[in-house]
Amino acid sequence: MTFKPTEYLPYDFANRRHIGPSPSEMTEMLGVVGVQTLEALIDDTLPAAIRQKVPLDFGRAMSEREVLEHLRKVGSQNKVLTSLIGQGYHGTVTPPAIQRNILENPAWYTAYTPYQPEISQGRLEALLNFQTMVSDLTGLEIANASLLDEATACAEAMTMAQRVAKSKAKVFFVDRDCHPQNIAVMQTRAAPLGIEVIVGNPAKMDASAVFGAIFQYPGTYGHVNDFTDHMAALHEHGAIGVVSADPLALTLLKEPGAMGADIAVGSTQRFGVPEGYGGPHAAYMACRDAYKRAMPGRIVGVSVDSHGNRAYRLSLQTREQHIRREKATSNVCTAQALLAVMASMYAVFHGPEGLKAIAQRIHRKTVRLAKGLEAAGFKVDPEACFDTITVDVGPLQAAVMKSAVDEGINLRAVGETRVGITLDERCKPATLEAVWRAFGILREDRDFRAEYRFPEAMLRTSDYLTHPIFHMNRAETEMMRYMRRLADRDLALDRAMIPLGSCTMKLNSAVEMMPVSWREFSLIHPYVPADQALGYKHMIDDLSAKLCDITGYDAISMQPNSGAQGEYAGLLTIAGYHRENGDDHRNICLIPMSAHGTNPASAQMVGWKVVVVKSAANGDIDLVDFRAKAEAAGDNLAACMITYPSTHGVFEETVTEVTKITHDHGGQVYIDGANMNAMVGLSRPGDLGGDVSHLNLHKTFCIPHGGGGPGMGPIGVKSHLVAHLPGSPVDGAGAVSAAPFGSPSLLPISWSYCLMMGGEGLTQATRVAILNANYIAKRLEGAFAVLYKGPTGRVAHECILDVRPFEASAGVTVDDIAKRLIDCGFHAPTMSWPVAGTLMVEPTESETKAELDRFCDAMLAIRAEIALIEAGKVDRDNNPLKNAPHTVEDLVGNWERPYSREQGCFPPGAFRVDKYWPPVNRVDNVYGDRHLVCTCPPLEEYAEAAE
Amino acid sequence: MTFKPTEYLPYDFANRRHIGPSPSEMTEMLGVVGVQTLEALIDDTLPAAIRQKVPLDFGRAMSEREVLEHLRKVGSQNKVLTSLIGQGYHGTVTPPAIQRNILENPAWYTAYTPYQPEISQGRLEALLNFQTMVSDLTGLEIANASLLDEATACAEAMTMAQRVAKSKAKVFFVDRDCHPQNIAVMQTRAAPLGIEVIVGNPAKMDASAVFGAIFQYPGTYGHVNDFTDHMAALHEHGAIGVVSADPLALTLLKEPGAMGADIAVGSTQRFGVPEGYGGPHAAYMACRDAYKRAMPGRIVGVSVDSHGNRAYRLSLQTREQHIRREKATSNVCTAQALLAVMASMYAVFHGPEGLKAIAQRIHRKTVRLAKGLEAAGFKVDPEACFDTITVDVGPLQAAVMKSAVDEGINLRAVGETRVGITLDERCKPATLEAVWRAFGILREDRDFRAEYRFPEAMLRTSDYLTHPIFHMNRAETEMMRYMRRLADRDLALDRAMIPLGSCTMKLNSAVEMMPVSWREFSLIHPYVPADQALGYKHMIDDLSAKLCDITGYDAISMQPNSGAQGEYAGLLTIAGYHRENGDDHRNICLIPMSAHGTNPASAQMVGWKVVVVKSAANGDIDLVDFRAKAEAAGDNLAACMITYPSTHGVFEETVTEVTKITHDHGGQVYIDGANMNAMVGLSRPGDLGGDVSHLNLHKTFCIPHGGGGPGMGPIGVKSHLVAHLPGSPVDGAGAVSAAPFGSPSLLPISWSYCLMMGGEGLTQATRVAILNANYIAKRLEGAFAVLYKGPTGRVAHECILDVRPFEASAGVTVDDIAKRLIDCGFHAPTMSWPVAGTLMVEPTESETKAELDRFCDAMLAIRAEIALIEAGKVDRDNNPLKNAPHTVEDLVGNWERPYSREQGCFPPGAFRVDKYWPPVNRVDNVYGDRHLVCTCPPLEEYAEAAE
Repeated sequence: MTFKPTEYLPYDFANRRHIGPSPSEMTEMLGVVGVQTLEALIDDTLPAAIRQKVPLDFGRAMSEREVLEHLRKVGSQNKVLTSLIGQGYHGTVTPPAIQRNILENPAWYTAYTPYQPEISQGRLEALLNFQTMVSDLTGLEIANASLLDEATACAEAMTMAQRVAKSKAKVFFVDRDCHPQNIAVMQTRAAPLGIEVIVGNPAKMDASAVFGAIFQYPGTYGHVNDFTDHMAALHEHGAIGVVSADPLALTLLKEPGAMGADIAVGSTQRFGVPEGYGGPHAAYMACRDAYKRAMPGRIVGVSVDSHGNRAYRLSLQTREQHIRREKATSNVCTAQALLAVMASMYAVFHGPEGLKAIAQRIHRKTVRLAKGLEAAGFKVDPEACFDTITVDVGPLQAAVMKSAVDEGINLRAVGETRVGITLDERCKPATLEAVWRAFGILREDRDFRAEYRFPEAMLRTSDYLTHPIFHMNRAETEMMRYMRRLADRDLALDRAMIPLGSCTMKLNSAVEMMPVSWREFSLIHPYVPADQALGYKHMIDDLSAKLCDITGYDAISMQPNSGAQGEYAGLLTIAGYHRENGDDHRNICLIPMSAHGTNPASAQMVGWKVVVVKSAANGDIDLVDFRAKAEAAGDNLAACMITYPSTHGVFEETVTEVTKITHDHGGQVYIDGANMNAMVGLSRPGDLGGDVSHLNLHKTFCIPHGGGGPGMGPIGVKSHLVAHLPGSPVDGAGAVSAAPFGSPSLLPISWSYCLMMGGEGLTQATRVAILNANYIAKRLEGAFAVLYKGPTGRVAHECILDVRPFEASAGVTVDDIAKRLIDCGFHAPTMSWPVAGTLMVEPTESETKAELDRFCDAMLAIRAEIALIEAGKVDRDNNPLKNAPHTVEDLVGNWERPYSREQGCFPPGAFRVDKYWPPVNRVDNVYGDRHLVCTCPPLEEYAEAAE
Repeated sequence: MTFKPTEYLPYDFANRRHIGPSPSEMTEMLGVVGVQTLEALIDDTLPAAIRQKVPLDFGRAMSEREVLEHLRKVGSQNKVLTSLIGQGYHGTVTPPAIQRNILENPAWYTAYTPYQPEISQGRLEALLNFQTMVSDLTGLEIANASLLDEATACAEAMTMAQRVAKSKAKVFFVDRDCHPQNIAVMQTRAAPLGIEVIVGNPAKMDASAVFGAIFQYPGTYGHVNDFTDHMAALHEHGAIGVVSADPLALTLLKEPGAMGADIAVGSTQRFGVPEGYGGPHAAYMACRDAYKRAMPGRIVGVSVDSHGNRAYRLSLQTREQHIRREKATSNVCTAQALLAVMASMYAVFHGPEGLKAIAQRIHRKTVRLAKGLEAAGFKVDPEACFDTITVDVGPLQAAVMKSAVDEGINLRAVGETRVGITLDERCKPATLEAVWRAFGILREDRDFRAEYRFPEAMLRTSDYLTHPIFHMNRAETEMMRYMRRLADRDLALDRAMIPLGSCTMKLNSAVEMMPVSWREFSLIHPYVPADQALGYKHMIDDLSAKLCDITGYDAISMQPNSGAQGEYAGLLTIAGYHRENGDDHRNICLIPMSAHGTNPASAQMVGWKVVVVKSAANGDIDLVDFRAKAEAAGDNLAACMITYPSTHGVFEETVTEVTKITHDHGGQVYIDGANMNAMVGLSRPGDLGGDVSHLNLHKTFCIPHGGGGPGMGPIGVKSHLVAHLPGSPVDGAGAVSAAPFGSPSLLPISWSYCLMMGGEGLTQATRVAILNANYIAKRLEGAFAVLYKGPTGRVAHECILDVRPFEASAGVTVDDIAKRLIDCGFHAPTMSWPVAGTLMVEPTESETKAELDRFCDAMLAIRAEIALIEAGKVDRDNNPLKNAPHTVEDLVGNWERPYSREQGCFPPGAFRVDKYWPPVNRVDNVYGDRHLVCTCPPLEEYAEAAE
């Protein structure tokens, strides 16, 4: 008996799992939008001229199960050895409670950057713990909430030093004992800024000739030196001293603050974050209080809410590039929040005694290792060390390294005749014995005497992690509940849509996240021999090929580990190209007014002058102005930086004209990939005239935002730029980040996504992203004006709602609406960008019609509330919008408001039983900046707050 | 420079992670309790006579990382082949979203059985979905919330059939096509109850001679038969028809209800729950409405709360053995809630179309497989099949099976000359081709025609899963949020202590849970050849040896997959022993009044008469009464069943006297292991005179409760009983569950726990469990009377608080206190057991002093509230206790109460920011039982509720 099979495809990841609206929902939505078919909507929205001709084709899409099997197979090509390479990356033990409850928990990894503090108190507290930990360990007053990696942090410290130094020298001194990748990235950063980097022996540093200096502590070859005198000398000449320090070593060794350092940077990777072939990990930066306003990155601070209760928030945001734009001092915007949270929880988990015990164990093993080698006649350096030694092996370097690999151990080649060994938390006596065997020594590790191999003067004498949070009972039960409580305070994608324009908060599926935790991907040091990372190579090659297909570029560099770093790397590539052509003088970069704030900041960083191009009335780039400014730049035109579709949410038909003008004047075209989610499968930046673009894998390609990082910003380039892509941070030039492939342990996410979606699935996701945005625009029509639309009245994958008129009509600001949305159970859309006072909404393809409707219902209800104010029926200063968000505290206390509790707390959109309650009322921004506190407040204040 | 290392041991799992109170907290607590040292407290509490002489010693305890490495190594000894063995176990694809968000999420797995409905609405909804799914698929009105496994469910159906049948026959007919393990377990169950089991060909069944009959559908060898005529014949003679059905097959095939079946049972394993070498999985049972009050197990029902809002609860609990005790009809109390939730989510995830598509895919492959074999000349049975066929291979059975293993595939040996093949969701064309190759056929799987290989009359014609919940948008974003919303409605260990006496809600650590998800443990069919499960064998052997050490027994059987089943298996073992000695007549079982309700129910199940022994005034067993009843029983004494320490929370010194009396009369001693958490390392049941005990691995050995299952109840026995332990369900006798080792995929949890704790750690955990209980007893002294104490005034690991006086003094019931504790953010202690109207508190060793204090503060505050009522200052009927629990609905609505919102909602103990809000007010139990609804209410009712 033959039959007609059910049409439902149960394993179709693209259409059944990733894409939100079901086929029948899409039909309804197309009806509302007013088109017959999805294809018709796309034809309407995307000018034919910019459509790609050949559909994406990656062969048959895989199911979830197939992709896991495939990744297991590919992962098994990575060989997991014990890497004692050191150089800033260390074996570590991730506490399973942290792995399960943070890294693998969508409540943490799907959260956005905590710009809306009322719905971010949990991760803000965890990040404040991180800052306190960094501040304590380094002995410096102010710490930020993480940077991308240690090398980038060094570079940031260098430019910060230049900003704050009294010295007007142009030279920055770099300790030759800095990790090679740190030196490489600082050199890359220095060149376009006209900073001369001198790498040398600190003993010979001329403090009078530099604006600052950086020292590695302990040194990359293990040395434990006291830089107190160097700091004094630097200060004498108005220069700034930076120490790049291993935070674990600082539990035993004299801290940078005690040496007089002005800035400290480093990596918190070894605080429980797996090596992951290079990342992601959280770097840190700390500085003296005097320099806090010059510090890059995000700083969590303590403020109060409208009831006077303590509340956390991001402080001093006016320093950030999205505010300062071409005056920004750094383009760092993605931090490594998720990894910083993990590292901070590791510190909470172990506490100061635990961390110190771990450091002591490592050190004691290092001393025993050295003794064993010395007993066998080897010369071991240095005399004072923490976890790293080097051994002179003469011409036998390769032989010893190979012998170690045979023992399952990777060592480090140092110079031509030495071998480096760095121990870590994972080392056991058996590890030492295996290393000895690699040197031909048969010896048992039995003499467990506790000895320091550094001078007593280097012993740390000050306390650290004295705050109660680091002394909480660390039973797992308590830790688990603490992590849950913090998670519950936040509103992430696992509870509601986060309709943030330009941020593409789409599904980060469970299956994509799974391989990230596998040892075959997580336990790989970034500098292992190539034959131990063949699985990574296969993945990177295949994903790169797919990204080339998607973008129309010829090559991809995976190195940039954030979108902003991708911009910077892309511009460097262009600069390299101009240099090769003898066009060193090309230094003008045209950037439209509507650009992302990182664009001008990135251009600054490559030493270019930013020329801002006006917008036309319809929001498009003003072609007349563009042409005029390109002509004015003439032979000095380096590049233009545009975003496509524009940050106004429109596919501009003039894009090819813009790229042509730029090329005609010898400039190169940078197309910002922030909006690739509106293009994949439909249009390719490479075909539009782009020479280089970065891709935000954490937007378009499903890497979760992690509450403010990690990110990945690989760049694609046309073939003429390939030679100028970032080089390897260990043996190349022009490196932009510490690891050759940025944060490669995230790549299984993006790769799985591509493999499970297939070409057609990816294209369909783009179409539905556009449908979802147009559906919202249509449903809100009449209530909110959509600021910019294409000629056919369509928006791309996002739309800007103009709420500016309500300020005059009802005294309602964009802030009021954002906070009121919290009452409705939503994260606000992007506020005041790219147009001040507006809201930019991007639903992505992953939201279902039901969730879009819930959002639209909420927005329409808010509009009705505004109307009541406009009509004079409700007070302008005492209404649900002004008092938003409402908390349980409001409900419990006296309610003397002209509207009911019900109206205040359960506006349309809000779930009844499952309502999200913000833990604080509206946070006072001004107070927080005026009274900057960026470490955990002292116990007494907790006691006070409890009263 | 030598130094004194930090004493902190960062990787000490026992003392730093598992055990709650820190050393300094313990010192403070000992002060409160009034002893100098922990050892002194133990000496005080545990009579010297019953202390074990030799400390537990399992060698060096492992760290979390070491245990993961060890389990990875052991796990790699299991070989993961593709098992096409069928026989009730099938490959399945666990959706990653369900794995991550349910199986690996402490919010789900650490929850308790939903006896307190107000804090269990999330899992109650998920279980209601499960019941709806089962009811729909089977075509029967009533379904329960899962049973232990299919074989147990068959046995339960048999005894239920006897209860409800009009026929008074003593014979139960069993289709010879039932799975062998189902037959085995039914035979075991039938024997002591005097039921004669006839296994035969249904065509030859004499319906007039039986009280019921069971048929497998499809049959174990693949047959798809219509049992409509058999049902009619049975009904004609007042007998009951049972069908054991594969729920996936029911998406295509005529359902049992349509055949006239009275009861249906089966396993939902293939709904996304990994095989796990046998379990845990959720079995199901459904029946006609007329029989609902005879159904074993838990039933979730729909009721209303005190505001009239819909609320879920466990219905008809009066049927349960803890109420009916010796009149209970089943001892089933642990369900498989976590697995039932997974299976129900799988159905929600795929929906009816998806499930049907999966079934069709499997069936089409089966048809193609058969055709390929037939084309090559093989004789394939049966003509009508779903997913299973058998092939005649004559004398080559072993050769073909081996050839299949070489292809990576396990087949099933059927008889001497046939090979069975069962396809599943994981099979691909390549699987078929590999099977063909095993038969020597080189053939490509290319002919994808859609053909049914069963008569059109067997096609299902009715709808199923029509409820909206199975038609929600199944995009992962939506599924993830649905799972989170349900999880958030519940209060589990990840948010607060669950101080349930006798339930030992201790830490279920993340590291212990991790290996459960590994494919080496999860993807193993229970009947694979022994050489493919060497890892399991190693683990089971080592864990058994450790449990023997801990208990003082000589052998362990892992087969019982719940505590109650352990009791039953233990009693069967004793019965077997008596039989061997010609003591068949021994049929009296002495059970103290204070025993667990499952004890008498288990004794009933082995056909014994229960004689209840009184308690003395101090709560101990009344020795005089015990001796008198033992003497009265004389030669008929089969056994006594006691719990140690007693369910009154006291170490009775008379225990050895009790065991001696029993032995003197030729009886055997069953010591219930429910309270082993007070004994491990300090005292051994085997040394006290116990002959057999069960261990609740889900209490003492860290298997999480899963919201009401899974559990594991292995039994330990003295050597003279070893021969009578349960046999293998496939080729032995006396099997009690479907799989040889019960639910072995849970064993990594208990084994990891033992390996990481070591002997001393386990012993310390016991000591601290006793300290924690005594600390609570001391802190509550004066406010609440502790009902029973030892002669030195100490309690064991739990204590009974007497709240009965408050009923008279203030009209406050134990229920009021339990519900008020919800306001304080706690799950109530065990209510009204073992003494009606009291609360039994067991904190376990995993709770920190801070959490114990929070609980004590809450209890003291409640006592103060009672005092106000007693003093007449507060109304007896309108007070925070009577109105508890308070919800957000109370806050939002009008507040016309004689106490403030603040007093109502934030009593001491309640967190301020992180308060847990129950989703419903107090649930009406009477309403729910009067209006039994145990499937999802129809859509209209949802609409009404929304209004």
